[in-house]
Amino acid sequence: MPVKKTPLPKGFKLAVARAGIKGPGLAKGRNDMALIYSERDAALAGTFTTNKVIGAPVVMNKQKARSASSNSARAIVINSGNSNSCTGARGMRDVRRMAALSAKHLGIDEDHVYVCSTGVIGVPMPMGVVRPGLKNLAEGILEGASGKSGASVEAAARAIMTTDSYPKFLSRTVKIGNRIARVTAVCKGAGMIEPDMATMLCFVMTDIAVEKPALKSALKAAVGDSFNMLTVDGDQSTSDCVLLMANGALGNAPLKKNSVGLKRFSKALAGMCYEMATMIARDGEGATKLLQVVVEGARTGAQAKKAAKAVANSLLVKTAVYGADPNWGRILPVLGRGGIFMDPLKVDIFIGKVKIASNGLAVAGAAAVKRARKELKKKEVLIRVDLKVGKASARAISCDLTEEYIRINSEYTT
Amino acid sequence: MPVKKTPLPKGFKLAVARAGIKGPGLAKGRNDMALIYSERDAALAGTFTTNKVIGAPVVMNKQKARSASSNSARAIVINSGNSNSCTGARGMRDVRRMAALSAKHLGIDEDHVYVCSTGVIGVPMPMGVVRPGLKNLAEGILEGASGKSGASVEAAARAIMTTDSYPKFLSRTVKIGNRIARVTAVCKGAGMIEPDMATMLCFVMTDIAVEKPALKSALKAAVGDSFNMLTVDGDQSTSDCVLLMANGALGNAPLKKNSVGLKRFSKALAGMCYEMATMIARDGEGATKLLQVVVEGARTGAQAKKAAKAVANSLLVKTAVYGADPNWGRILPVLGRGGIFMDPLKVDIFIGKVKIASNGLAVAGAAAVKRARKELKKKEVLIRVDLKVGKASARAISCDLTEEYIRINSEYTT
Repeated sequence: MPVKKTPLPKGFKLAVARAGIKGPGLAKGRNDMALIYSERDAALAGTFTTNKVIGAPVVMNKQKARSASSNSARAIVINSGNSNSCTGARGMRDVRRMAALSAKHLGIDEDHVYVCSTGVIGVPMPMGVVRPGLKNLAEGILEGASGKSGASVEAAARAIMTTDSYPKFLSRTVKIGNRIARVTAVCKGAGMIEPDMATMLCFVMTDIAVEKPALKSALKAAVGDSFNMLTVDGDQSTSDCVLLMANGALGNAPLKKNSVGLKRFSKALAGMCYEMATMIARDGEGATKLLQVVVEGARTGAQAKKAAKAVANSLLVKTAVYGADPNWGRILPVLGRGGIFMDPLKVDIFIGKVKIASNGLAVAGAAAVKRARKELKKKEVLIRVDLKVGKASARAISCDLTEEYIRINSEYTT
Repeated sequence: MPVKKTPLPKGFKLAVARAGIKGPGLAKGRNDMALIYSERDAALAGTFTTNKVIGAPVVMNKQKARSASSNSARAIVINSGNSNSCTGARGMRDVRRMAALSAKHLGIDEDHVYVCSTGVIGVPMPMGVVRPGLKNLAEGILEGASGKSGASVEAAARAIMTTDSYPKFLSRTVKIGNRIARVTAVCKGAGMIEPDMATMLCFVMTDIAVEKPALKSALKAAVGDSFNMLTVDGDQSTSDCVLLMANGALGNAPLKKNSVGLKRFSKALAGMCYEMATMIARDGEGATKLLQVVVEGARTGAQAKKAAKAVANSLLVKTAVYGADPNWGRILPVLGRGGIFMDPLKVDIFIGKVKIASNGLAVAGAAAVKRARKELKKKEVLIRVDLKVGKASARAISCDLTEEYIRINSEYTT
């Protein structure tokens, strides 16, 4: 877990507010809005859900991110409790209103404000409570700017939670030339999680100056191996966004593609995205264990990813992990479902360090089963599959499936 | 539920035995083997799992079904408790031995004996107990032939159960010319059920004479709209078979393709397969409700099937059905995941008879939600989606997802 006082990169401020939006996972009196604010114009890169059914905020953010000039992001408004998805023309009006009101309160350009909403689908935004919330957020920032501290990273991470059981945030430093830069991120996500891309909300802030094409490619690579390899329940949200703001407060010359500085930043970013993806999986609705599935020896990278995700998504595998049952007979058929080049009689399967199946057959002796069961009782479980038909590999990030997932999702009321 | 004394078609006999194979769902002292026996050579058609990881019995049955001449099936040996899958060369030797021993005991050709096994994966068949079981089965048949009655349809259906909570069987009559023919079927299946094809075991017997090509096409059509549209947990078994035996004891001229008789038989067969698929879904591990998903107005039949299956497979939809939550905001994003031509702002969603979303937006008023919740509290739930982009439709058969599914599958030990 991150330490209490997580630092922000230079030139960023946060604010939180309690608007009173009702929604799943939102306890009464909880903060349900957050604002990320950069004192300087920042470059922005974003990745968005590929679902065709997308929320009004995603529609607006995609348009803004596409048409934006290099340094054109100043603020991200986030609310939990209502996703403003499947809300039609009214939803589009509401999200544009949210951006416009925030811009007015903050005294910035409306086009520089992004909005992310997470929560119930198909219910109009309760603008009556959102409007004063937006005002409170802006006041929090302006007060912060005028001497007070603004909200903490943890408070912002808490305000964007829905069914999450803990706030998710982290911060790292990166050396750029001889300056020490900072990257800080918050994210949320617990259910309705099956990427392609990104199945949750994540906001990354850095004070490094990065050229926009370089920023975009760094984000795309980081997300491809982290959030896009994450699955909790195979269901895809309508609201997923990862937004990365680089405001250049560090004062470095903007990082270009293929530069040493960009490589360092990209590595830190990829590591942070991977760590946040494991945080989300660990907090998967009802989860008791983090499950990672590594597939090696696949023909292509795409096949390795597909195979790893299929195993990580199998209900029978996830319940076996929950029950600490080293039943590799549930793993092999998942690989055989189709679309993956494999030969059942070549496959090796490991649970943790224990080889449980060799060339598609059980490893002889009760000792392996006993040792594998021990591995499955750990809080972090690794299933490793070697297809032995190629050189590609991939890792999927998931969790076990428990009665609690069912309870949460059968009691979640519209 | 079928009546107690379910009739067999003419010329068929059944036997059951208690071999003592240990496996999931098998209570001590339960029958775990069954034999379907035709007194005359029967035409056989089969459909098999498309998983690449398939059990030794499936490998053997596919070979036999492909190379078989017109009337070449006499017996099907079935055991529960062990699927003889992922058992390599030893598994192939064991299944051939099972066929050979049964043939010897019954005094028939080894090539005319099919074997189906269901149960745990990756554990060698316990041939020490299976061998005497095969002898007992044959004795049951020969005694039956010599005046005793053999086993009942229900007893056979019980003997092939694993985690099933009740036996699944039914029988219908079909008029062929001026003769009354009979079709009787038994099947099993409760978990590890996601077709393509067929995710369970099903055996259909009829006394009608049918030409082999006609028999095959009738079975393929029936399975395509029933077992192949069935999903309990998205996991695909290694052992799935539907075997159809037509022994001609009715004395009719063998039915040809496009004949009136074949149409009647095909209709009865399709209806029976559909009914059995709903029996399996109703008995889905931990299920409390049958869930049917109808997708209409799709561009193509394949898209309609894909969409219906995706909704029927969504954990969030299945838990919402369990909790009687008319949350259509979980349904629409499933359709948007990809691969289905749709426009979110055209989609209508019905729960039972209640329209809950119209053109992708919530139907105004609390009355619809209240009425939809009532529909969801029924034992049989219908979700109907109209994409309004074409004329194709499909129906998927599924069930709700409950804590009990998790319990069963986390406690199921290897």
